[in-house]
Amino acid sequence: MIAKTVLDLAKARNLKVATAESCTGGMVAAALTDIPGSSAVVDRGFVTYSNEAKIDMLGVRPDTLATFGAVSEEVAREMAEGAIAQSLADIAVAITGIAGPGGSEHKPEGRVCFGLCLKGLKTQTETVEFGAVGRDRVRLLSRDHALEMLAHALA
Amino acid sequence: MIAKTVLDLAKARNLKVATAESCTGGMVAAALTDIPGSSAVVDRGFVTYSNEAKIDMLGVRPDTLATFGAVSEEVAREMAEGAIAQSLADIAVAITGIAGPGGSEHKPEGRVCFGLCLKGLKTQTETVEFGAVGRDRVRLLSRDHALEMLAHALA
Repeated sequence: MIAKTVLDLAKARNLKVATAESCTGGMVAAALTDIPGSSAVVDRGFVTYSNEAKIDMLGVRPDTLATFGAVSEEVAREMAEGAIAQSLADIAVAITGIAGPGGSEHKPEGRVCFGLCLKGLKTQTETVEFGAVGRDRVRLLSRDHALEMLAHALA
Repeated sequence: MIAKTVLDLAKARNLKVATAESCTGGMVAAALTDIPGSSAVVDRGFVTYSNEAKIDMLGVRPDTLATFGAVSEEVAREMAEGAIAQSLADIAVAITGIAGPGGSEHKPEGRVCFGLCLKGLKTQTETVEFGAVGRDRVRLLSRDHALEMLAHALA
């Protein structure tokens, strides 16, 4: 199970984890804290569903939101970096996407942008087009993709 | 479905919702954002798994944590009030408990404290003893209890 792998890897390296979630709305934090002993690894999670929350909690710049839209690698990057800056964590993953139904911001349903920040290293970002596979499926696939990014970075 | 009821009630009253979660680790926020259209209602969520997160993100007082422990109605109250103070939400629910396995702080496994704050009204708190029914079950029951508190307050 991928959440357990993330916890074991982080624990072995004595690193703390934070999450910054928009379209997954807490699912990544919930998956990590599902594992007994997760309190040794999980510091906190930011569920920044509104743009105001992204700005207030994570320091995402209003300009970045206005220029690129909430679903963009630029915003995912600022969310991940904000989660590191605003927590005690050493590694943070950020997720912002369009779970649907329907697209928005002239962007297609199923587009999800991810950011991964390991303190002191360059932030990585990526975009995955999950397609119009339904809200539940986009959210689950996004959750698992975020956990895989954490596991990969910690391995 | 209780999360849908909460969203419909909040939308009808034009109220925004925030969550402050410890032992449920994001499950309440995830359940609310599972519903299409939740962005009209859900402002943000705080997953305050560590004590430091409770202090930094929600303004829980270190004295309250030291005196009553993280799993207490006093901390649940400060978490709910902090979620209102640190967000654009009108109503917030807070959850802090011992999901197990095993008790801690000399408190039994399955004890969960809840706080509910509706802006401008007196914060309500309560404790539920779910018992040693297993980590997953305590978390699910806690999630549903928190959603029921929101629905009841909004009805």
